[in-house]
Amino acid sequence: MSVADLPTLQREALAHAAPAAVRAAIRERRWTGNTKRLALGYHQANVTILPERYAFDFMRFCHRNPRSLPLLDVTDPGYPHPTLAAPEADLRTDIPAFCVYRDGQLVERVSDLRPLWRDDHVAFLTGCNLSIDQVLLEAGIRFPHLVREDAFPAQYRSSLPAREAGVFRGPVVLSYRPVPEAQLLRVIELTSRFPLCHGGPVHVGDPGRVGIADLAEIDWGRKPEPSPGTVPAFWACGITAQAAALASAIPEMITHAPGHMFVTDLPVSDRTFG
Amino acid sequence: MSVADLPTLQREALAHAAPAAVRAAIRERRWTGNTKRLALGYHQANVTILPERYAFDFMRFCHRNPRSLPLLDVTDPGYPHPTLAAPEADLRTDIPAFCVYRDGQLVERVSDLRPLWRDDHVAFLTGCNLSIDQVLLEAGIRFPHLVREDAFPAQYRSSLPAREAGVFRGPVVLSYRPVPEAQLLRVIELTSRFPLCHGGPVHVGDPGRVGIADLAEIDWGRKPEPSPGTVPAFWACGITAQAAALASAIPEMITHAPGHMFVTDLPVSDRTFG
Repeated sequence: MSVADLPTLQREALAHAAPAAVRAAIRERRWTGNTKRLALGYHQANVTILPERYAFDFMRFCHRNPRSLPLLDVTDPGYPHPTLAAPEADLRTDIPAFCVYRDGQLVERVSDLRPLWRDDHVAFLTGCNLSIDQVLLEAGIRFPHLVREDAFPAQYRSSLPAREAGVFRGPVVLSYRPVPEAQLLRVIELTSRFPLCHGGPVHVGDPGRVGIADLAEIDWGRKPEPSPGTVPAFWACGITAQAAALASAIPEMITHAPGHMFVTDLPVSDRTFG
Repeated sequence: MSVADLPTLQREALAHAAPAAVRAAIRERRWTGNTKRLALGYHQANVTILPERYAFDFMRFCHRNPRSLPLLDVTDPGYPHPTLAAPEADLRTDIPAFCVYRDGQLVERVSDLRPLWRDDHVAFLTGCNLSIDQVLLEAGIRFPHLVREDAFPAQYRSSLPAREAGVFRGPVVLSYRPVPEAQLLRVIELTSRFPLCHGGPVHVGDPGRVGIADLAEIDWGRKPEPSPGTVPAFWACGITAQAAALASAIPEMITHAPGHMFVTDLPVSDRTFG
């Protein structure tokens, strides 16, 4: 039976599935799309894989920029299983798609990392805004990416600098949500309670104040539709890591493909893990 | 004027002083004692200084054991100023006393680290239970170490294993407080709100359940007095790091002397730093 013959799944069937079931569907190629609204209530993670010689610099970079890069887990060199976030999972097979960068350039997109995995690879898992979709839905917040299948948040390089660490430096990347005016305070309050999902917004209002001249000029994600009656709000974004790694022109970095996150076993409701 | 001629300070004079003033008093040797109840309301930090080649292992060890080792700051190799926790401070001079360990043995106690500091030294600052003294005092909790000048919490190696990372492994070290029965739930609630100060207790009740056969047989700190009407409560403790570093017999580790912490600029009331 070829991959094409396997039954495909609808997003709604996986929205309320356990994280392990979602990862199995991804591993068996029954789900190859983005992970928006999958395994609601569990942390989804940005994944950045680097050679060990950059790992301590990068871990300090994450720790110093916790709004952009809240650390969920860091693997031992060569060990592809995230001990804290999902010890039974395999990062090489349980993510729908990966991007491979060499010398600061995207060179390949792959769905199976096993042929490329090395003994000196270290994987960093950092929190993601998609993880609080369920919290926002339950509170009656209907962001476009939550109600339209083809919508996805837009991300922009901002004029805010990330704190440097070793070779890693660059702009804070921001993700954009149009917030209905009447819901703004509630959205700030709710998101502020979840520091592992980037916490509250970094900026609300005129995008030009954080170096974004035109919302139509996106750097990642999907171009937003005009949203009358909404206020632009911006959250720190995990892509800050990729922007820094690319700017430092390190020889190799492998990441999840945009929107195709790693689904962890960590419940969003538990704000700390010890 | 010799150091002996400088005016000495009373603890109460520094209890409500700003962190920078406390560090200046320490640097100028006007204060040489422990930091209990100094700069109330600000994080005090455990300090562990290691050669860079152990730093990535140790940073993972901290991240995997956040109850024992909540990371406040990690310095760049050779740079003795903690960028996040107190950028104007110098870790080599602003701590009352240091312990120097070589090959797993305490070999020296010094008050000035400048002669020993090297370009490959990395300092790790982790949260400390003393940081919530003010919160507990305001809530009417009167632990012995808060009301008696000569009292200090006792610490014990427990039977609970810390999560391993690289060369670092060992027991979770626990600090002990006798809690009046009527205040137990309140103490659990209050401390649980402060994960950067070790959060809530790991164990309440029979010390034997966590491998502590006799409260009189302390491993660090001061031997506790009998406390009728109290319940034994145990919190994860930053000494977990030192126990692991000693067990791994790494060639060199430098720490603050017990109870002689680094006073940071980080307010305890801000539970996250971004």
